[in-house]
Amino acid sequence: MQNTASKIKVGIVGGTGYTGVELLRLLAQHPQVTLHAITSRKEAGLPVADMFPNLRGHVDLAFTTPEEAALTDCEVVFFATPHGVAMAQAQQLLDAGVRIIDLAADFRLQDTAVFEQWYKMPHSCPEILRKAIYGLPELNRHALANARVVGNPGCYPTTVLLGLAPLLKPKVLIDTGDIIADSKSGVSGAGRKAEVGALFSEVSDSFKAYGVAGHRHHPEIKAQLDQLAGVSVGLTFVPHLVPMVRGMLSTIYVKLLPEAKSIDLQALYESFYQNETFVDVMPAGSQPETRFVRASNTLRLALHRPPGHPDRLIVLAVQDNLVKGASGQAIQNMNLMFGLPEGTGLSQVAILP
Amino acid sequence: MQNTASKIKVGIVGGTGYTGVELLRLLAQHPQVTLHAITSRKEAGLPVADMFPNLRGHVDLAFTTPEEAALTDCEVVFFATPHGVAMAQAQQLLDAGVRIIDLAADFRLQDTAVFEQWYKMPHSCPEILRKAIYGLPELNRHALANARVVGNPGCYPTTVLLGLAPLLKPKVLIDTGDIIADSKSGVSGAGRKAEVGALFSEVSDSFKAYGVAGHRHHPEIKAQLDQLAGVSVGLTFVPHLVPMVRGMLSTIYVKLLPEAKSIDLQALYESFYQNETFVDVMPAGSQPETRFVRASNTLRLALHRPPGHPDRLIVLAVQDNLVKGASGQAIQNMNLMFGLPEGTGLSQVAILP
Amino acid sequence: MQNTASKIKVGIVGGTGYTGVELLRLLAQHPQVTLHAITSRKEAGLPVADMFPNLRGHVDLAFTTPEEAALTDCEVVFFATPHGVAMAQAQQLLDAGVRIIDLAADFRLQDTAVFEQWYKMPHSCPEILRKAIYGLPELNRHALANARVVGNPGCYPTTVLLGLAPLLKPKVLIDTGDIIADSKSGVSGAGRKAEVGALFSEVSDSFKAYGVAGHRHHPEIKAQLDQLAGVSVGLTFVPHLVPMVRGMLSTIYVKLLPEAKSIDLQALYESFYQNETFVDVMPAGSQPETRFVRASNTLRLALHRPPGHPDRLIVLAVQDNLVKGASGQAIQNMNLMFGLPEGTGLSQVAILP
Amino acid sequence: MQNTASKIKVGIVGGTGYTGVELLRLLAQHPQVTLHAITSRKEAGLPVADMFPNLRGHVDLAFTTPEEAALTDCEVVFFATPHGVAMAQAQQLLDAGVRIIDLAADFRLQDTAVFEQWYKMPHSCPEILRKAIYGLPELNRHALANARVVGNPGCYPTTVLLGLAPLLKPKVLIDTGDIIADSKSGVSGAGRKAEVGALFSEVSDSFKAYGVAGHRHHPEIKAQLDQLAGVSVGLTFVPHLVPMVRGMLSTIYVKLLPEAKSIDLQALYESFYQNETFVDVMPAGSQPETRFVRASNTLRLALHRPPGHPDRLIVLAVQDNLVKGASGQAIQNMNLMFGLPEGTGLSQVAILP
Repeated sequence: MQNTASKIKVGIVGGTGYTGVELLRLLAQHPQVTLHAITSRKEAGLPVADMFPNLRGHVDLAFTTPEEAALTDCEVVFFATPHGVAMAQAQQLLDAGVRIIDLAADFRLQDTAVFEQWYKMPHSCPEILRKAIYGLPELNRHALANARVVGNPGCYPTTVLLGLAPLLKPKVLIDTGDIIADSKSGVSGAGRKAEVGALFSEVSDSFKAYGVAGHRHHPEIKAQLDQLAGVSVGLTFVPHLVPMVRGMLSTIYVKLLPEAKSIDLQALYESFYQNETFVDVMPAGSQPETRFVRASNTLRLALHRPPGHPDRLIVLAVQDNLVKGASGQAIQNMNLMFGLPEGTGLSQVAILP
Repeated sequence: MQNTASKIKVGIVGGTGYTGVELLRLLAQHPQVTLHAITSRKEAGLPVADMFPNLRGHVDLAFTTPEEAALTDCEVVFFATPHGVAMAQAQQLLDAGVRIIDLAADFRLQDTAVFEQWYKMPHSCPEILRKAIYGLPELNRHALANARVVGNPGCYPTTVLLGLAPLLKPKVLIDTGDIIADSKSGVSGAGRKAEVGALFSEVSDSFKAYGVAGHRHHPEIKAQLDQLAGVSVGLTFVPHLVPMVRGMLSTIYVKLLPEAKSIDLQALYESFYQNETFVDVMPAGSQPETRFVRASNTLRLALHRPPGHPDRLIVLAVQDNLVKGASGQAIQNMNLMFGLPEGTGLSQVAILP
Repeated sequence: MQNTASKIKVGIVGGTGYTGVELLRLLAQHPQVTLHAITSRKEAGLPVADMFPNLRGHVDLAFTTPEEAALTDCEVVFFATPHGVAMAQAQQLLDAGVRIIDLAADFRLQDTAVFEQWYKMPHSCPEILRKAIYGLPELNRHALANARVVGNPGCYPTTVLLGLAPLLKPKVLIDTGDIIADSKSGVSGAGRKAEVGALFSEVSDSFKAYGVAGHRHHPEIKAQLDQLAGVSVGLTFVPHLVPMVRGMLSTIYVKLLPEAKSIDLQALYESFYQNETFVDVMPAGSQPETRFVRASNTLRLALHRPPGHPDRLIVLAVQDNLVKGASGQAIQNMNLMFGLPEGTGLSQVAILP
Repeated sequence: MQNTASKIKVGIVGGTGYTGVELLRLLAQHPQVTLHAITSRKEAGLPVADMFPNLRGHVDLAFTTPEEAALTDCEVVFFATPHGVAMAQAQQLLDAGVRIIDLAADFRLQDTAVFEQWYKMPHSCPEILRKAIYGLPELNRHALANARVVGNPGCYPTTVLLGLAPLLKPKVLIDTGDIIADSKSGVSGAGRKAEVGALFSEVSDSFKAYGVAGHRHHPEIKAQLDQLAGVSVGLTFVPHLVPMVRGMLSTIYVKLLPEAKSIDLQALYESFYQNETFVDVMPAGSQPETRFVRASNTLRLALHRPPGHPDRLIVLAVQDNLVKGASGQAIQNMNLMFGLPEGTGLSQVAILP
């Protein structure tokens, strides 16, 4: 084990939400990290383990105000905040040599007009944005190694992008004009905000689609798919809310191009992801369940060719929305940025049952 | 209120499963029915309210053996049994003038080869099958009024067929070669059988697709769509399991034909279903939740035209899989067959929360 | 069916919470009621079925302001509001001859000092309070028939009081100094308020005790038990939160007095409740489940004498907290107040599964 | 890291149930263990990760027959089997020098007559039983260090015993004749058996007491309490089923003896458990939730003195029934038996949300 002096000094801005407590859970077990500060103006002074008693005995930190936090002393700062916070503080941290991983959307969308349309605020630091890297390690590993600012992907985009990448890169094998992602998420994706719509009595024992007319992750997925495919793709994306706490499954429907029909797609996927620590291509015909990845950083994929539809491919992708879909992926990015083995501190086995 | 003499004398074969107890719940409140007998060889002698204590004070019947049940004295017999039971007993009941409503699959598929492929048993009474009516009242109302044998639809088919009918009849408005139904069901659809896969600890707080390689409801949906459209349609159908007891939502993706793009589809649907008691076309842009129909016989629909996709239509359909998807629909069929107002005994308001 | 003229004209104040929508669900099916008005200053103008789409096709009313509502035209007004609202409006309604059923706590506690201690507000109409009747029909039936103001019981008190009444009245059979009620409630009991503690992600797949240091229903239960027993009882009451929407179970531990040990308590309970429509004494040894009463107005009881403890009696009581524990009981009270058969409009069979 | 040669060679008998997969999850992350074999006659040949895909990438073992497993080559064998299996194989393993940790009940009850009464089978190896140690490390640490056979405690007993031990040892501070444990468990405690009663549709969104007339853990708790207290205690124990997968909470009601009323019980508990890795005495007045310990080996306790009841003490205890209540505790025992730090491989932070 390294001594403390050589560990990464980490700060967290925000931290009273679910991605915050999940960062803490994972970082508390990370052998190369020291938690330096966690900020919350509202909760300043409160031990984090009083708010999240699962951390009792594991995290001694208390929330502090941003002023006291001395975040410029950190080597990396995670923003587990609402949209707009990271961009307000980025320049100051960068000036002090601190690297930034934003779990909100400030650095996900290179097109600021699109950002402003969907997030209803101007982008305050487009120059930093231009240098920010989209934090999907499996696709951007080399750029991430040198990144100063990382826009950690949305939860839905992670499933759809890793589900489709092997079909788009290096060669487009599908009709890019006709991609459907029917996605389902657990309720923790809605965050830890006091809203009637996320009450137990509103969502338990029920199921619905939401955001059908437009969801913020649609432009994010499309921008990344466009880049992978080299063309503007046609994407239909419908998110749904599942009465479970964690977990996300995307059922992705694509049409194979004629030249793809003879390709062994299972082998293609297995080859594409063969060196990945956190992407598991399950055997052909598998039916992944979200509990197969609960509380772990693994995303599992399965391919299906429904009988009687020679050009139809169905990709199933599952992840824990709070881990691979948020805080685990952020730590995976941190590992890359600091030259650590990508899986450091992320070897947890999924909880089943 | 009619006197007892004029009430419909009803028998139930099976009745130890979820469609059985749901039939009993609804029939116990039906003003024009007397429950004559309920059979279960295994549970003969047991009061049904001992097995299903929600019925205490409402149903006094005990299970009896088929021999004791004198089903031939009934006017109508519901089969809430595994596949294959109704066809074994149908001829004898018909000979006695008893009408039959089968909640299993024996009388759903006119093509016996398809039946045998999917249900792994020969069809023992193809002549009765030929005269059987597919029990979807909104589409087959006139035929049902005179039916002697009704094949009550599967739960998934009800959502997809009612979701698409206005687009196919009288005129085909969509690309029939490219229909996708991404359907999600509560766990009660799996029945009340002792199976590891339906244990609470296996399915709670998790989500999965299943039957991706082929589900028995696929040929049923396709056969009915083929008939509605007058051509062989291309259907991709993927069912999913939601950790909730009751409820079903289908997200249906279709492509509009050029001539359909100028049609007011919302008005078309509202017109198509304007006289229906149990189909509710919600305002455009609505996002129906399964709890909006919990424990009621109503199916609610909503239409969405996602921005940027002028030819894409998304239909959302929700129902309670045990009511409109099974036992409620069976009673709706019974009402039709006996000349009662279709909604008799089915006016329950959905339970929310 | 009576004609409209003879129906009870009903108003509801509040109605955007769970007891409100449950009142609407039940009153919409009540044959002797016309819904006259439902008020919500905040939602004025909104059709109630837009907020609660389960009511689509059943309730046409829109929310109105209290000013527009003309509540003084009603024969009875239900208050489904926070504590303190009913007492502010009671005098005006009473002056107009309107009867009042308050589902909050304003008229539950005769001791205003206790009320003020627990509800943190002065009681503004102690004279009305003195004439108010505690709305537990099984114990106060005669007084309720002539009541002008009814304090509808809390959900927990209903289970504990009906669970213990046969042991206290006409004769005390238990050690009144040592009563323990370990109660468990579904989350809908917390209401439809935007609070972090009731979010799905906070309470699903978890379990806790709450209010251990003191819960508002403790003084209410104690006051009624004191009255039944004729002495000041010693009550330990610990509520717990169950990850389910509806339902409540109280496990009540008492010690039998020596003279009670020879009594057939099962027979005593059956006799005590033999004429009750909504109390079901299950066979000795039964283990009632909350789903046995889901969405129905029935409370089911079972008695247990654990082996090896001759003086220990355990009473299990289950109800739907929103029906018998709130809105159903309120309607049962209304029926009594207007001379209708007590079960009118309340014959729903519990939903299982 | 130690080299493989020095690691503990572990075998598992059974392993197709929830305690089995939980053992595998935890042992796969244990730095001092090599998994040698896992047996299941029925599943022989199947990779365990095919049955439990959460283990993909973490456990390469396949199930083997007992014959092939060469369990006598192991240093320790866990039995994650139905009751009766361990006692049938114990002598042979002991003769080979293998230590045994049984997660079933074969070695929990020293009184074979009681065992036979509750488990309906004769005890086949009473001499081994006499030397077996009850595997509750916090109470039996020294004996466990030299144990050859460990009876791993039941889940309920762990909560009640750790909840009461400081009140009984070294000095009895409570009325031992009047102990009530009202316990609530998640459904995984029922195991991974195909039984109707544990189906999702039977237990979800519902709550019940069970085993009120007698539960197998009653004699186990009583035997251990008797030993702690040095007298025969009077225990009322009522288990309940909570619609959640994991988690257990016991609400324990006791009466303080006069001499206990002046003692600072909070300090007493904190002192009693001050050196324990896995028992957390929360601050006075805390309300522990089962999710505070989900998937971790920690048991958390809180004490309450309800106002107005000077002699009443309420102890709340939560644990994950599959970890501290089963497999985690088994590994804690193994660590003790092999001279490892007790927390080795058990440092997982609880999963919240």
